[in-house]
Amino acid sequence: MNKQASLEKITAWAKRRGFIYPSSEIYGGLANNYDFGPYGTELKNNIRDLWWKRFVVNREDMVGIDASIILNSKVWEASGHTESFADVMIDCKNCKNRTRIDHLIEDKFNEIFNEYSKQKDYKGGSVDDWIVKVMQRGKVEGLSIQQLKTLLLKYKEILKCPVCGKFDWTEPRKFNQLFETHIGILEESKSLAYLRGEIAQGLFLNFKNVLDSTRVRLPFGIAQQGKAFRNEITKGQLLHRTLEFDLMEFEYFIREKDWKDVYAYWEKEMWQYALDLGIDGQNLRWREHEEFERSHYSKMTKDIEYEYPFGWKEMFGLAYRTDFDLKNHMKNSGQDLNYTDPNTNEKFIPHVVEPTFGLSRLIGILMFEGYNEEEVNGKQRVIFKIDPKIAPVKAAIFPLQKDEKLKNLAREIFEKLRKEFSCEFDDAGNIGKMYRRQDEIGTPWCVTIDFDSLKDNSATIRDRDTMKQERVKISDLENWISGKLS
Amino acid sequence: MNKQASLEKITAWAKRRGFIYPSSEIYGGLANNYDFGPYGTELKNNIRDLWWKRFVVNREDMVGIDASIILNSKVWEASGHTESFADVMIDCKNCKNRTRIDHLIEDKFNEIFNEYSKQKDYKGGSVDDWIVKVMQRGKVEGLSIQQLKTLLLKYKEILKCPVCGKFDWTEPRKFNQLFETHIGILEESKSLAYLRGEIAQGLFLNFKNVLDSTRVRLPFGIAQQGKAFRNEITKGQLLHRTLEFDLMEFEYFIREKDWKDVYAYWEKEMWQYALDLGIDGQNLRWREHEEFERSHYSKMTKDIEYEYPFGWKEMFGLAYRTDFDLKNHMKNSGQDLNYTDPNTNEKFIPHVVEPTFGLSRLIGILMFEGYNEEEVNGKQRVIFKIDPKIAPVKAAIFPLQKDEKLKNLAREIFEKLRKEFSCEFDDAGNIGKMYRRQDEIGTPWCVTIDFDSLKDNSATIRDRDTMKQERVKISDLENWISGKLS
Repeated sequence: MNKQASLEKITAWAKRRGFIYPSSEIYGGLANNYDFGPYGTELKNNIRDLWWKRFVVNREDMVGIDASIILNSKVWEASGHTESFADVMIDCKNCKNRTRIDHLIEDKFNEIFNEYSKQKDYKGGSVDDWIVKVMQRGKVEGLSIQQLKTLLLKYKEILKCPVCGKFDWTEPRKFNQLFETHIGILEESKSLAYLRGEIAQGLFLNFKNVLDSTRVRLPFGIAQQGKAFRNEITKGQLLHRTLEFDLMEFEYFIREKDWKDVYAYWEKEMWQYALDLGIDGQNLRWREHEEFERSHYSKMTKDIEYEYPFGWKEMFGLAYRTDFDLKNHMKNSGQDLNYTDPNTNEKFIPHVVEPTFGLSRLIGILMFEGYNEEEVNGKQRVIFKIDPKIAPVKAAIFPLQKDEKLKNLAREIFEKLRKEFSCEFDDAGNIGKMYRRQDEIGTPWCVTIDFDSLKDNSATIRDRDTMKQERVKISDLENWISGKLS
Repeated sequence: MNKQASLEKITAWAKRRGFIYPSSEIYGGLANNYDFGPYGTELKNNIRDLWWKRFVVNREDMVGIDASIILNSKVWEASGHTESFADVMIDCKNCKNRTRIDHLIEDKFNEIFNEYSKQKDYKGGSVDDWIVKVMQRGKVEGLSIQQLKTLLLKYKEILKCPVCGKFDWTEPRKFNQLFETHIGILEESKSLAYLRGEIAQGLFLNFKNVLDSTRVRLPFGIAQQGKAFRNEITKGQLLHRTLEFDLMEFEYFIREKDWKDVYAYWEKEMWQYALDLGIDGQNLRWREHEEFERSHYSKMTKDIEYEYPFGWKEMFGLAYRTDFDLKNHMKNSGQDLNYTDPNTNEKFIPHVVEPTFGLSRLIGILMFEGYNEEEVNGKQRVIFKIDPKIAPVKAAIFPLQKDEKLKNLAREIFEKLRKEFSCEFDDAGNIGKMYRRQDEIGTPWCVTIDFDSLKDNSATIRDRDTMKQERVKISDLENWISGKLS
């Protein structure tokens, strides 16, 4: 955990420096949703593009698609989402407060755990197996309504209404997280449709189309990047859970017998990708889902979790979805979604392993991970330590002082460099202020033009993290930066 | 107009070659919506990225953001969309057929025009001014309900119900095109929200945030790329109108007095951009909207139209939205959205000029524009003539024959080139077939390895359009391709 990065600090800095803004803010916001500002957008685009290059363009076993957000409602019936994609809610009969039962329990988890420990010691461990697991991991995701109710009643002294203090809850009820909308102009002929709650279904729906129009053969993956939507009550943990969010994902189609090897392969790849983004391995861990918390389609799920100041939370997920989706779509649509082996003519429904990378969530994590405060000569410096490959701005170019000749040369260099890299020119303040501003948005290199530059055709490059300065020939600047980025 | 490219041909080829697939196809599709296949996605991403580089990264007066799709419903009240963003529908009282009145009229436009011409000659031109304009341009977009009704009654012999043949219509009625959804888990506390009907509002909403967190000063633009949604009955003209579609757009904030110059500047820039995409200027035209067809927020709108086989249709739009949006958001939100001149301290609401580029629509246009059939040695060849900079695959690498040594060398070259460019390796068929496949997906260069390659370390590059072959040193291939792309 990065101890300097509190939720409050990151939220304020991210807005002040144009990374993210509360959505619809001038109208009082909208349910903890965020818009990406100029630097957040560049950061997101850079991650999106490098992910695509790494996992799609540079791999022969992967193709990418871009499917619709509004899908036929039959899709979500076949996938099981209209049935299983739900939050469990309870109402306080006394004060009418409504809440998610999992939030209620997790918010009081420490107290529950203390109580549990006491009871356990006292009774010598005679509690249900699933409760032991819940206590070990501190999460209740995936519990059945009945299990949640059991916990609620077991810890009724702790789980009182946080508003009125009474314990007088209704029965827990399920509410679906898919956003509904209606297609069609006239009320009578409108048909129900859903905003996609995951981007995976677009991949399954186009399985046959991809097979028919490209040369992919098993094993292969179909990848996608795009928005998904979940109508859920969020806790406001910045980008961790929002109503709409960007995902990067693929379904990797395989023979059933290979699933364990393929799963192990993608486990390694995902971990390496996280490290390559510059995230400290100390702040990451794999966590395997217990059977009761796995999604309805999965036989094995592991998450890479990141340690935020508010705890360990899911960053990436890896699910073995078996042939659940293709099989159900085949059944419900009546279309043949079998794969035919081109050598043996064997026909079968492939199984899939699904690596999912939360893109907006990743931006949040990189902000928590990269935010740093340092004291330099008695003054505080905020640095966003982000890998130069994904930094929103690669280089800032300044004249050292307000001087026409310095400015002209700096502009000339700026004009040349920005053809290749995202760059900024600045001559608005003193050099210290200009450095600080670039440090805060994560610009890895500041290039300063001084009076010597006019004579020796060199400039000073200052490193964001070490603040070390290096003198480089102006004609070599482009190569110097390219070299650092490759 | 590209006379080889009929709607049927393009639709079939686009699916067969993995550009676009009907959305939710296995469930019977969804209202003429499309998903992008592997080659369509690469094409779209390439256009998106080059547009962003050209208009955002490479310009000091532009910053990009990425706002939410689901916006607070108050946004759309302030913007006038809940009131004015509507289709006009009529019902046949006899057979209950429902239709958009503008579609009904435009589908019969030739007959109406003939009738109009006869009447005009006969009566000596004594018709209303707006009818003359409708006849000149063949479109009824933007007419008032009253005007549409006038046309309906005037040409009642022609405008009978296309289903039952009677003329027995209801009064025309307006239906809003914004997709509705609801946020919140419990029925009683759900709040109405809309999917964005244009991406512009996210730009206006963040005007103040961008001013506060970046160093932009008037004149400057805020740009965005992303999906918009319109609940409308579409004619199924491929990607021309779909329920959801990708836009690229910016609001360029200016002083009111400068609007004409700024408008003229962006007119030139947009035209040049269209030509740079490789679209023949013969197939493009500017068309200025008549007052009655302009959107409610605009004082001047011009479209760049493209000539499809089904007529001239909007491709890009350029609107002078005045201070309409900022003014209304300021009034409705109570937030100060003024701009303060840093030199004079003058406070005012900026005006905006808005260039809009339909991205999904552009993919459709480039397919209509680039599709070509040629006869070569008595056989038909389909070529997708697309600018190499945006082509989905830059180079395909083949061994000339099935031979282990040729294959190994070809693989080695492929592995090297694909680090830089999107490439394909193929050794599945004879050379002619492999060429044809790449021609159809628009790959500009095929690189063939033959037995001479093993001796002279050279390969043959074959050009997609001219089919001319050139011998190039294997060590020079990367530079050769880079040179063509720069």
